[in-house]
Amino acid sequence: MDVFIEPIGKLMNEFSKLPGVGKKTAQRYAYRVIKMSDGEAEAFAEAIVNVKKQVRFCKVCGNFTVDEVCEICRVRDKSSVCVVKEPKDVIALEKLREFKGVYHVLHGVIDPMNGVSPNDIRIKELLARIGEGGVKEVIMATNPDVEGEATAMYIAKILKPLGVKVTRLAHGIPIGSELEYADEVTLSRALIERKEI
Amino acid sequence: MDVFIEPIGKLMNEFSKLPGVGKKTAQRYAYRVIKMSDGEAEAFAEAIVNVKKQVRFCKVCGNFTVDEVCEICRVRDKSSVCVVKEPKDVIALEKLREFKGVYHVLHGVIDPMNGVSPNDIRIKELLARIGEGGVKEVIMATNPDVEGEATAMYIAKILKPLGVKVTRLAHGIPIGSELEYADEVTLSRALIERKEI
Repeated sequence: MDVFIEPIGKLMNEFSKLPGVGKKTAQRYAYRVIKMSDGEAEAFAEAIVNVKKQVRFCKVCGNFTVDEVCEICRVRDKSSVCVVKEPKDVIALEKLREFKGVYHVLHGVIDPMNGVSPNDIRIKELLARIGEGGVKEVIMATNPDVEGEATAMYIAKILKPLGVKVTRLAHGIPIGSELEYADEVTLSRALIERKEI
Repeated sequence: MDVFIEPIGKLMNEFSKLPGVGKKTAQRYAYRVIKMSDGEAEAFAEAIVNVKKQVRFCKVCGNFTVDEVCEICRVRDKSSVCVVKEPKDVIALEKLREFKGVYHVLHGVIDPMNGVSPNDIRIKELLARIGEGGVKEVIMATNPDVEGEATAMYIAKILKPLGVKVTRLAHGIPIGSELEYADEVTLSRALIERKEI
Protein backbone atom coordinates (compact mmCIF):
# COMPACT_ATOMS: atom_id res chain seq x y z
CA MET A 1 0.00 0.00 0.00
CA ASP A 2 1.43 3.34 -1.02
CA VAL A 3 1.40 5.99 1.69
CA PHE A 4 -0.46 8.41 -0.59
CA ILE A 5 -3.95 7.73 -1.89
CA GLU A 6 -4.22 7.75 -5.65
CA PRO A 7 -5.59 11.25 -6.45
CA ILE A 8 -3.08 12.88 -4.09
CA GLY A 9 -0.19 10.82 -5.49
CA LYS A 10 -1.21 11.76 -9.02
CA LEU A 11 -1.36 15.47 -8.24
CA MET A 12 2.00 15.30 -6.45
CA ASN A 13 3.41 13.68 -9.54
CA GLU A 14 2.14 16.58 -11.67
CA PHE A 15 3.56 19.20 -9.30
CA SER A 16 6.91 17.36 -9.36
CA LYS A 17 7.19 18.25 -13.05
CA LEU A 18 7.58 21.92 -12.16
CA PRO A 19 11.18 23.18 -11.93
CA GLY A 20 12.78 22.69 -8.52
CA VAL A 21 9.80 20.87 -7.01
CA GLY A 22 10.69 17.71 -5.08
CA LYS A 23 8.41 15.21 -3.41
CA LYS A 24 8.11 17.14 -0.15
CA THR A 25 7.16 20.40 -1.88
CA ALA A 26 4.77 18.56 -4.20
CA GLN A 27 3.07 17.15 -1.10
CA ARG A 28 2.68 20.61 0.45
CA TYR A 29 1.23 21.95 -2.82
CA ALA A 30 -1.20 19.03 -3.13
CA TYR A 31 -2.41 19.53 0.45
CA ARG A 32 -2.94 23.21 -0.28
CA VAL A 33 -5.11 22.27 -3.28
CA ILE A 34 -7.18 19.93 -1.08
CA LYS A 35 -7.83 22.87 1.25
CA MET A 36 -9.00 25.08 -1.64
CA SER A 37 -12.69 25.57 -2.33
CA ASP A 38 -14.07 23.73 -5.37
CA GLY A 39 -14.24 27.07 -7.18
CA GLU A 40 -10.62 27.92 -6.42
CA ALA A 41 -9.41 24.52 -7.61
CA GLU A 42 -11.43 24.85 -10.82
CA ALA A 43 -10.02 28.32 -11.46
CA PHE A 44 -6.52 26.90 -10.97
CA ALA A 45 -7.15 24.03 -13.40
CA GLU A 46 -8.70 26.42 -15.91
CA ALA A 47 -5.72 28.78 -15.75
CA ILE A 48 -3.44 25.89 -16.68
CA VAL A 49 -5.56 24.83 -19.64
CA ASN A 50 -6.06 28.44 -20.79
CA VAL A 51 -2.38 29.29 -20.77
CA LYS A 52 -1.83 26.42 -23.21
CA LYS A 53 -4.86 27.37 -25.31
CA GLN A 54 -4.31 31.12 -25.50
CA VAL A 55 -0.58 31.75 -25.38
CA ARG A 56 1.28 31.65 -28.68
CA PHE A 57 4.38 33.23 -30.15
CA CYS A 58 4.26 36.67 -31.79
CA LYS A 59 4.95 36.06 -35.47
CA VAL A 60 7.22 39.11 -35.56
CA CYS A 61 9.34 38.97 -32.40
CA GLY A 62 8.72 35.45 -31.09
CA ASN A 63 7.61 36.63 -27.65
CA PHE A 64 4.53 35.24 -25.86
CA THR A 65 1.27 36.82 -26.96
CA VAL A 66 -2.45 36.09 -27.21
CA ASP A 67 -2.66 37.81 -30.60
CA GLU A 68 -0.95 37.17 -33.91
CA VAL A 69 1.36 40.13 -33.34
CA CYS A 70 2.18 41.13 -29.74
CA GLU A 71 1.34 44.48 -28.22
CA ILE A 72 4.98 45.56 -28.03
CA CYS A 73 5.47 44.97 -31.76
CA ARG A 74 2.22 46.80 -32.56
CA VAL A 75 2.79 50.04 -30.66
CA ARG A 76 6.49 50.57 -30.02
CA ASP A 77 9.46 52.15 -31.82
CA LYS A 78 10.71 49.65 -34.40
CA SER A 79 14.03 51.37 -35.08
CA SER A 80 15.63 49.74 -32.05
CA VAL A 81 15.54 45.92 -31.69
CA CYS A 82 16.70 44.21 -28.50
CA VAL A 83 17.74 40.58 -29.11
CA VAL A 84 17.21 38.16 -26.19
CA LYS A 85 17.43 34.42 -25.63
CA GLU A 86 14.04 33.75 -24.08
CA PRO A 87 10.64 35.34 -23.37
CA LYS A 88 11.54 35.69 -19.69
CA ASP A 89 14.37 38.04 -20.67
CA VAL A 90 11.78 40.34 -22.26
CA ILE A 91 9.98 40.42 -18.89
CA ALA A 92 13.22 41.29 -17.06
CA LEU A 93 13.86 44.21 -19.41
CA GLU A 94 10.24 45.38 -19.52
CA LYS A 95 10.22 45.69 -15.74
CA LEU A 96 12.75 48.52 -16.06
CA ARG A 97 10.25 50.55 -18.11
CA GLU A 98 13.21 52.15 -19.83
CA PHE A 99 13.59 50.50 -23.21
CA LYS A 100 11.17 51.95 -25.77
CA GLY A 101 12.04 49.74 -28.72
CA VAL A 102 10.95 46.24 -29.75
CA TYR A 103 12.35 42.77 -29.07
CA HIS A 104 13.51 39.73 -30.96
CA VAL A 105 13.38 36.45 -29.05
CA LEU A 106 15.88 33.90 -30.39
CA HIS A 107 14.39 30.97 -28.42
CA GLY A 108 17.85 29.70 -27.63
CA VAL A 109 21.50 30.52 -28.21
CA ILE A 110 24.10 28.90 -30.42
CA ASP A 111 25.47 25.95 -28.43
CA PRO A 112 27.36 23.42 -30.61
CA MET A 113 28.11 21.22 -27.57
CA ASN A 114 24.37 20.63 -27.22
CA GLY A 115 23.70 20.49 -30.94
CA VAL A 116 22.16 23.97 -31.28
CA SER A 117 23.34 25.55 -34.53
CA PRO A 118 22.55 29.06 -35.83
CA ASN A 119 19.75 27.52 -37.92
CA ASP A 120 18.00 26.22 -34.81
CA ILE A 121 17.35 29.64 -33.33
CA ARG A 122 15.46 32.60 -34.81
CA ILE A 123 18.36 34.31 -36.57
CA LYS A 124 16.92 34.21 -40.11
CA GLU A 125 13.75 35.82 -38.76
CA LEU A 126 15.90 38.61 -37.31
CA LEU A 127 17.64 39.12 -40.66
CA ALA A 128 14.27 39.21 -42.41
CA ARG A 129 13.06 41.92 -40.02
CA ILE A 130 16.17 43.98 -40.64
CA GLY A 131 15.81 43.41 -44.39
CA GLU A 132 12.46 45.18 -44.26
CA GLY A 133 14.33 48.34 -43.29
CA GLY A 134 13.88 50.94 -40.58
CA VAL A 135 16.08 49.23 -37.95
CA LYS A 136 18.82 51.58 -36.76
CA GLU A 137 20.19 49.68 -33.79
CA VAL A 138 20.27 46.06 -32.66
CA ILE A 139 21.02 45.60 -28.97
CA MET A 140 22.44 42.16 -28.21
CA ALA A 141 21.05 41.24 -24.78
CA THR A 142 21.90 37.54 -24.64
CA ASN A 143 23.32 36.30 -21.32
CA PRO A 144 26.97 37.06 -20.48
CA ASP A 145 27.95 33.37 -20.63
CA VAL A 146 29.97 31.53 -23.28
CA GLU A 147 26.98 30.67 -25.49
CA GLY A 148 25.36 34.09 -25.06
CA GLU A 149 28.59 35.88 -25.98
CA ALA A 150 29.24 33.63 -28.97
CA THR A 151 25.69 34.16 -30.23
CA ALA A 152 26.00 37.93 -29.84
CA MET A 153 29.31 37.92 -31.74
CA TYR A 154 27.91 35.68 -34.48
CA ILE A 155 24.89 37.90 -35.07
CA ALA A 156 26.97 41.11 -34.85
CA LYS A 157 29.27 39.76 -37.56
CA ILE A 158 26.34 39.16 -39.92
CA LEU A 159 24.68 42.51 -39.20
CA LYS A 160 27.69 44.83 -39.39
CA PRO A 161 28.00 44.63 -43.23
CA LEU A 162 24.30 45.59 -43.46
CA GLY A 163 25.11 48.97 -41.93
CA VAL A 164 23.14 48.37 -38.74
CA LYS A 165 24.59 49.59 -35.45
CA VAL A 166 25.03 46.60 -33.15
CA THR A 167 25.52 47.13 -29.42
CA ARG A 168 25.91 44.83 -26.45
CA LEU A 169 24.72 45.25 -22.86
CA ALA A 170 27.60 46.48 -20.67
CA HIS A 171 29.35 44.01 -18.38
CA GLY A 172 30.97 44.93 -15.09
CA ILE A 173 30.61 44.96 -11.35
CA PRO A 174 26.99 44.95 -10.25
CA ILE A 175 25.87 48.22 -8.64
CA GLY A 176 25.85 48.00 -4.85
CA SER A 177 28.16 45.00 -4.67
CA GLU A 178 31.76 44.99 -3.48
CA LEU A 179 34.93 44.50 -5.52
CA GLU A 180 36.00 41.82 -3.08
CA TYR A 181 33.04 39.63 -3.98
CA ALA A 182 33.12 40.08 -7.76
CA ASP A 183 34.29 36.94 -9.58
CA GLU A 184 37.55 37.19 -11.51
CA VAL A 185 36.01 37.16 -14.98
CA THR A 186 33.62 39.98 -14.12
CA LEU A 187 36.37 41.99 -12.46
CA SER A 188 38.78 41.61 -15.36
CA ARG A 189 35.97 42.55 -17.74
CA ALA A 190 35.20 45.63 -15.66
CA LEU A 191 38.87 46.62 -15.85
CA ILE A 192 39.10 46.11 -19.62
CA GLU A 193 35.88 48.05 -20.23
CA ARG A 194 36.81 50.87 -17.82
CA LYS A 195 35.51 54.31 -18.75
CA GLU A 196 36.93 57.78 -18.36
CA ILE A 197 35.09 59.81 -15.76
CA MET B 1 0.53 47.68 -19.92
CA ASP B 2 1.39 44.91 -17.51
CA VAL B 3 4.62 43.06 -18.29
CA PHE B 4 2.75 39.73 -18.31
CA ILE B 5 0.05 38.91 -20.83
CA GLU B 6 -3.27 37.98 -19.25
CA PRO B 7 -3.29 34.15 -19.34
CA ILE B 8 0.27 34.00 -17.97
CA GLY B 9 -0.50 36.58 -15.27
CA LYS B 10 -3.60 34.62 -14.25
CA LEU B 11 -1.72 31.32 -14.00
CA MET B 12 1.08 33.01 -12.02
CA ASN B 13 -1.57 34.33 -9.66
CA GLU B 14 -2.89 30.79 -9.14
CA PHE B 15 0.57 29.37 -8.51
CA SER B 16 1.21 32.18 -6.00
CA LYS B 17 -1.53 30.71 -3.81
CA LEU B 18 0.65 27.65 -3.14
CA PRO B 19 2.70 27.78 0.09
CA GLY B 20 6.07 29.51 -0.27
CA VAL B 21 5.56 30.45 -3.92
CA GLY B 22 6.48 34.06 -4.73
CA LYS B 23 6.16 35.91 -8.01
CA LYS B 24 9.49 34.74 -9.41
CA THR B 25 8.75 31.07 -8.72
CA ALA B 26 5.20 31.44 -10.04
CA GLN B 27 6.69 32.80 -13.27
CA ARG B 28 9.05 29.82 -13.61
CA TYR B 29 6.15 27.43 -13.02
CA ALA B 30 3.94 29.21 -15.55
CA TYR B 31 6.69 29.09 -18.18
CA ARG B 32 7.11 25.38 -17.53
CA VAL B 33 3.38 24.87 -18.16
CA ILE B 34 3.64 26.78 -21.44
CA LYS B 35 6.37 24.36 -22.50
CA MET B 36 4.21 21.32 -21.66
CA SER B 37 2.33 19.47 -24.38
CA ASP B 38 -1.44 20.05 -24.49
CA GLY B 39 -1.92 16.55 -23.08
CA GLU B 40 0.44 17.16 -20.18
CA ALA B 41 -1.25 20.43 -19.28
CA GLU B 42 -4.67 18.78 -19.41
CA ALA B 43 -3.49 15.93 -17.18
CA PHE B 44 -2.18 18.52 -14.72
CA ALA B 45 -5.48 20.44 -14.70
CA GLU B 46 -7.42 17.20 -14.33
CA ALA B 47 -5.29 16.07 -11.37
CA ILE B 48 -6.20 19.31 -9.57
CA VAL B 49 -9.92 18.95 -10.20
CA ASN B 50 -9.86 15.23 -9.33
CA VAL B 51 -8.12 15.71 -6.02
CA LYS B 52 -10.96 18.02 -4.99
CA LYS B 53 -13.63 15.69 -6.35
CA GLN B 54 -12.28 12.41 -5.02
CA VAL B 55 -10.50 13.14 -1.76
CA ARG B 56 -12.62 13.21 1.37
CA PHE B 57 -12.13 12.53 5.06
CA CYS B 58 -12.43 9.02 6.47
CA LYS B 59 -15.52 9.06 8.67
CA VAL B 60 -13.69 7.03 11.31
CA CYS B 61 -10.19 8.52 11.59
CA GLY B 62 -10.48 11.82 9.67
CA ASN B 63 -7.57 11.02 7.35
CA PHE B 64 -7.72 11.60 3.58
CA THR B 65 -9.41 8.82 1.65
CA VAL B 66 -11.33 8.17 -1.55
CA ASP B 67 -13.76 5.83 0.24
CA GLU B 68 -16.14 6.36 3.14
CA VAL B 69 -13.74 4.53 5.47
CA CYS B 70 -10.01 4.62 4.68
CA GLU B 71 -7.91 1.56 3.96
CA ILE B 72 -5.96 1.85 7.20
CA CYS B 73 -9.17 1.82 9.27
CA ARG B 74 -10.51 -1.13 7.27
CA VAL B 75 -7.58 -3.51 7.55
CA ARG B 76 -5.40 -2.61 10.52
CA ASP B 77 -5.25 -3.40 14.23
CA LYS B 78 -7.80 -1.19 15.99
CA SER B 79 -6.52 -1.78 19.52
CA SER B 80 -3.83 0.89 19.09
CA VAL B 81 -4.83 4.42 18.02
CA CYS B 82 -2.23 7.03 17.13
CA VAL B 83 -3.54 10.60 17.52
CA VAL B 84 -2.06 13.23 15.19
CA LYS B 85 -2.75 16.83 14.30
CA GLU B 86 -2.96 16.60 10.52
CA PRO B 87 -3.16 14.12 7.63
CA LYS B 88 0.46 14.87 6.73
CA ASP B 89 1.52 13.47 10.11
CA VAL B 90 -0.07 10.15 9.14
CA ILE B 91 2.13 10.13 6.03
CA ALA B 92 5.25 10.82 8.11
CA LEU B 93 4.46 7.88 10.41
CA GLU B 94 3.34 5.54 7.61
CA LYS B 95 6.67 6.03 5.86
CA LEU B 96 8.33 4.23 8.79
CA ARG B 97 6.26 1.10 8.05
CA GLU B 98 6.50 0.31 11.76
CA PHE B 99 3.20 1.26 13.32
CA LYS B 100 0.56 -1.41 12.78
CA GLY B 101 -2.40 0.32 14.45
CA VAL B 102 -4.88 2.95 13.26
CA TYR B 103 -4.88 6.74 13.39
CA HIS B 104 -7.06 9.55 14.60
CA VAL B 105 -6.58 12.90 12.91
CA LEU B 106 -7.60 15.82 15.13
CA HIS B 107 -7.48 18.39 12.30
CA GLY B 108 -5.87 20.91 14.59
CA VAL B 109 -4.66 21.29 18.17
CA ILE B 110 -6.07 23.23 21.10
CA ASP B 111 -4.84 26.79 20.70
CA PRO B 112 -6.79 29.32 22.81
CA MET B 113 -4.64 32.22 21.54
CA ASN B 114 -5.99 31.55 18.04
CA GLY B 115 -9.49 30.70 19.22
CA VAL B 116 -9.23 26.93 18.80
CA SER B 117 -11.03 25.22 21.69
CA PRO B 118 -11.27 21.45 22.37
CA ASN B 119 -14.67 21.49 20.64
CA ASP B 120 -13.13 22.72 17.39
CA ILE B 121 -10.99 19.64 16.89
CA ARG B 122 -11.99 15.97 16.58
CA ILE B 123 -11.79 15.06 20.28
CA LYS B 124 -15.44 13.93 20.70
CA GLU B 125 -14.98 11.64 17.69
CA LEU B 126 -11.95 10.11 19.44
CA LEU B 127 -13.97 9.58 22.63
CA ALA B 128 -16.78 8.00 20.61
CA ARG B 129 -14.31 5.56 19.02
CA ILE B 130 -12.91 4.60 22.41
CA GLY B 131 -16.45 4.29 23.77
CA GLU B 132 -17.08 1.54 21.22
CA GLY B 133 -14.46 -0.54 23.06
CA GLY B 134 -11.43 -2.52 21.93
CA VAL B 135 -8.90 0.31 22.18
CA LYS B 136 -6.02 -0.68 24.47
CA GLU B 137 -3.56 2.14 23.82
CA VAL B 138 -3.77 5.71 22.56
CA ILE B 139 -0.46 7.14 21.35
CA MET B 140 -0.41 10.93 21.46
CA ALA B 141 1.69 11.99 18.45
CA THR B 142 0.90 15.70 18.32
CA ASN B 143 3.89 17.99 17.71
CA PRO B 144 6.29 18.72 20.58
CA ASP B 145 5.31 22.41 20.71
CA VAL B 146 3.21 24.25 23.31
CA GLU B 147 -0.15 23.57 21.62
CA GLY B 148 0.74 19.98 20.76
CA GLU B 149 1.82 19.24 24.33
CA ALA B 150 -1.25 20.93 25.82
CA THR B 151 -3.55 18.97 23.51
CA ALA B 152 -1.81 15.70 24.40
CA MET B 153 -2.16 16.44 28.13
CA TYR B 154 -5.81 17.48 27.74
CA ILE B 155 -6.76 14.29 25.91
CA ALA B 156 -4.68 12.12 28.27
CA LYS B 157 -6.56 13.59 31.25
CA ILE B 158 -9.93 12.66 29.71
CA LEU B 159 -8.83 9.17 28.68
CA LYS B 160 -7.05 8.04 31.85
CA PRO B 161 -10.29 7.57 33.89
CA LEU B 162 -11.61 5.37 31.05
CA GLY B 163 -8.86 2.86 31.74
CA VAL B 164 -7.09 3.36 28.42
CA LYS B 165 -3.31 3.38 28.35
CA VAL B 166 -2.15 6.74 26.99
CA THR B 167 1.41 7.16 25.74
CA ARG B 168 3.36 10.02 24.18
CA LEU B 169 6.11 9.93 21.55
CA ALA B 170 9.51 10.25 23.23
CA HIS B 171 11.33 13.58 23.13
CA GLY B 172 15.07 13.94 23.16
CA ILE B 173 18.15 14.54 21.09
CA PRO B 174 17.65 13.53 17.45
CA ILE B 175 19.68 10.48 16.45
CA GLY B 176 22.86 11.42 14.59
CA SER B 177 22.94 15.02 15.81
CA GLU B 178 25.37 16.46 18.34
CA LEU B 179 24.72 17.58 21.90
CA GLU B 180 26.34 20.90 21.08
CA TYR B 181 23.67 21.72 18.53
CA ALA B 182 20.61 20.59 20.48
CA ASP B 183 18.45 23.49 21.69
CA GLU B 184 18.19 23.97 25.46
CA VAL B 185 14.59 22.81 25.77
CA THR B 186 15.33 19.56 23.91
CA LEU B 187 18.51 18.99 25.90
CA SER B 188 16.85 19.57 29.26
CA ARG B 189 14.01 17.27 28.19
CA ALA B 190 16.53 14.61 27.21
CA LEU B 191 18.12 14.92 30.64
CA ILE B 192 14.82 14.70 32.53
CA GLU B 193 13.68 11.71 30.49
CA ARG B 194 17.04 9.92 30.73
CA LYS B 195 16.90 6.13 30.80
CA GLU B 196 18.94 3.52 32.57
CA ILE B 197 21.14 1.53 30.22
